[in-house]
Amino acid sequence: VQTIITTQFIERLEVLIEARDEAQILELIGDLHPVDLAEVFHEITPVQSKYLYTLIDEEKAAEMVAFLDEDVREKFLDQLTSKEIAENFVENLDSDDAADIIGELSQERQREVLSEIDDIEIASDIVDLLKYDEDTAGGLMAKELIQVNVNWSREKVIDEIRLQAHEVENVYTVYVVNDEDVLLGILPLKKLLIEPETVRIEDMYQDKIHRVEVNQSAEEVATIMKKYDLVVLPVVDEIGRLVGRITIDDVVDVIQEEAEKDYQLMSGLSGNVESDDSVWLITRARIPWLLVGLLGGVVVSQVIGVYENEIRIHPEMAYFIPLIAAMGGNAGVQSSAIIVQGLANNSLRLGDAWFKFFKELSVGLINGFICSLAIMIYNVMFGNPSELSITVSVAMLTVIVVASILGTFIPLTLNRFKIDPALATGPFITTMNDITGMFIYFLIGRLMYGIL
Amino acid sequence: VQTIITTQFIERLEVLIEARDEAQILELIGDLHPVDLAEVFHEITPVQSKYLYTLIDEEKAAEMVAFLDEDVREKFLDQLTSKEIAENFVENLDSDDAADIIGELSQERQREVLSEIDDIEIASDIVDLLKYDEDTAGGLMAKELIQVNVNWSREKVIDEIRLQAHEVENVYTVYVVNDEDVLLGILPLKKLLIEPETVRIEDMYQDKIHRVEVNQSAEEVATIMKKYDLVVLPVVDEIGRLVGRITIDDVVDVIQEEAEKDYQLMSGLSGNVESDDSVWLITRARIPWLLVGLLGGVVVSQVIGVYENEIRIHPEMAYFIPLIAAMGGNAGVQSSAIIVQGLANNSLRLGDAWFKFFKELSVGLINGFICSLAIMIYNVMFGNPSELSITVSVAMLTVIVVASILGTFIPLTLNRFKIDPALATGPFITTMNDITGMFIYFLIGRLMYGIL
Repeated sequence: VQTIITTQFIERLEVLIEARDEAQILELIGDLHPVDLAEVFHEITPVQSKYLYTLIDEEKAAEMVAFLDEDVREKFLDQLTSKEIAENFVENLDSDDAADIIGELSQERQREVLSEIDDIEIASDIVDLLKYDEDTAGGLMAKELIQVNVNWSREKVIDEIRLQAHEVENVYTVYVVNDEDVLLGILPLKKLLIEPETVRIEDMYQDKIHRVEVNQSAEEVATIMKKYDLVVLPVVDEIGRLVGRITIDDVVDVIQEEAEKDYQLMSGLSGNVESDDSVWLITRARIPWLLVGLLGGVVVSQVIGVYENEIRIHPEMAYFIPLIAAMGGNAGVQSSAIIVQGLANNSLRLGDAWFKFFKELSVGLINGFICSLAIMIYNVMFGNPSELSITVSVAMLTVIVVASILGTFIPLTLNRFKIDPALATGPFITTMNDITGMFIYFLIGRLMYGIL
Repeated sequence: VQTIITTQFIERLEVLIEARDEAQILELIGDLHPVDLAEVFHEITPVQSKYLYTLIDEEKAAEMVAFLDEDVREKFLDQLTSKEIAENFVENLDSDDAADIIGELSQERQREVLSEIDDIEIASDIVDLLKYDEDTAGGLMAKELIQVNVNWSREKVIDEIRLQAHEVENVYTVYVVNDEDVLLGILPLKKLLIEPETVRIEDMYQDKIHRVEVNQSAEEVATIMKKYDLVVLPVVDEIGRLVGRITIDDVVDVIQEEAEKDYQLMSGLSGNVESDDSVWLITRARIPWLLVGLLGGVVVSQVIGVYENEIRIHPEMAYFIPLIAAMGGNAGVQSSAIIVQGLANNSLRLGDAWFKFFKELSVGLINGFICSLAIMIYNVMFGNPSELSITVSVAMLTVIVVASILGTFIPLTLNRFKIDPALATGPFITTMNDITGMFIYFLIGRLMYGIL
């Protein structure tokens, strides 16, 4: 049931657009879901887009626009008048999507589009939504919801639901408010259907419900909806009045973005960059961490420089520099990734720091010992000098243990100081590991060659 | 509205459990959501758990058990009889959660628990669900849903919904089937409320709906629900008969696990390991990639070993080994992470390989040039030999460009051969980068010292 847009599909469509063959085009794209249509619009030129758009029905076109990537949408909307945007798109979308789209326009264009919206209620909803930061509950919520007054009769409630349901696409729940619009609870549709006629609204609604305030962060909203398995979550203002509702589909994106943020930090990218972004954007996202790595590499070179004489006499010490650096880096990233992920999905159980320390020490010692033994066997088998063999093995064990412990405690410490713990998995830390690793390796080497 | 379980909370609870102070315990935990209760059960001993469980009401206890981590749940259920599990838990849970829990028990225990279930329909639903692999649509689905026959009268439909709604916790949609139980479409509750009495079911249901087959993978299910913003998705068998439904909350976990899998591969962990797992489990998840790194490090040492004489004469060449290795690793991971993420969230647009190649070449050249220039300035300022300065800068530019291009094409190639592209971000590739990097560095070094 998932439509896959292929290169062949696009090529065929482009030929049909060239030929202005309306009938064939409609046959090709007529049944596409708005999401899939958006994919098509990503692959064709703005001029082709403008023509294609005139063939699609208005509601579908509006939904398609909501699914476009920001950069493609910008180019597409540039070709339309403010009146077209207001009438064709905004009035056909849920208020949250409409506000997101208008929010991307320039201040002047925003004002023009808003003034072209015929329905004053929709316009005022959008003006209201534009006030909130996109990373807050207010920025995620839509205004469309069904609310009934706790004092209404059952007939009035059912009539009102019927009336309001025309406006709201997906009816999950009916909210119950008092005369001041303060949210009291929810009235499941199911209850209206199955409770006997005599039961009053007041005795039917559930009052223990989850809710968030407009200014709570999108991340908190995601955590709450995920933790409590919620499909929809009401949003209230500072004094508890119902102002909107957030549905899970908007939050799935937030959850995904959170996961991607950690991934990007780990891979040394700054900011949310995609493979389709421009060369300039991609370059800008990559260079900062490369420069951090460069700076670290320079420090490492100074550390190694201290041992110039040792290297001149025992050049074989240099052979294992990358190995020691890599093992420290790998062990450090492994232990910090476990902590970062535990913090991100709230699965980190309580427990004191000493317990964590000894556990990590054990893991580090076991893994370090296995690796040290393996490299010792290799070095002996290949007849490398015993000073070198012992140095490499002892340094490897030490580096793995130290990196494991640092990898555990650096993210925990960052988190305590409200700094994103995912920083502890990126190039910053692997560079720190390189520095400590080289320091340990050559220190042990000097000792060994001195002693033996 | 999110409850946070603190260490203080647990300590207080443990004192109360010690004192068997039922009233105070209930005051403390009485209002907790099952998810939060599960967190509490993660922090206390099995013996404390068993006592606490007797104080909680049956339905809440059942939901709490569904939220426990597998290892904690196993220990907890070990203390209960099969009869208790069947009567207290299974019958109070949705069929998908019940099947998940029973599926974790030993074969013998499964049979015992199933035979203790009083309601034959529930038992047969669970037996049915146990057949499916947990990574398929069948493994995600629940049996509870509301279905009506397309030929029924409107009154009969409403009566049936009332009847069935008692069994189903969240009613999102009513499914319409024909006499052979083949899924025809959905009937939104809203329509029943707002359409005039005269409209027949046949003319009221939507027939263009998304559906999946029982054997489709959980990943496909997640992709479809995410892409099309679905809250609930019906599952049909090979001949189109309705057999269950999947709700978004179960899929949010799949989405999260997918993201975590990529993250773990990148950090060199094999398998899904958490910070609370045993030392043994954590060690086992970490050692394979450490050994891969070890093997790579040995190969690198052989590559460097070829240049023993150069290092003896020019020990300063060794200073920049970690820098060159780190820069190659960072640039490679950066470009492969962008591709892996694009593949994972289906955001990678179409486009030919040459276009991607030239784009990556440009990014690599720009970043490589900036870094080479920076390190050249450093080397000149610190009066390092010009041979070394040129070697480091030329090698850095080359390594960054090569790593960027490999980083782009390795995951794309893996993906084409149906191998998880995320492998291209882990220790395997950073090790490959180390090897190529050292090869390039020393080759250029030999050339430079020979020429200049």
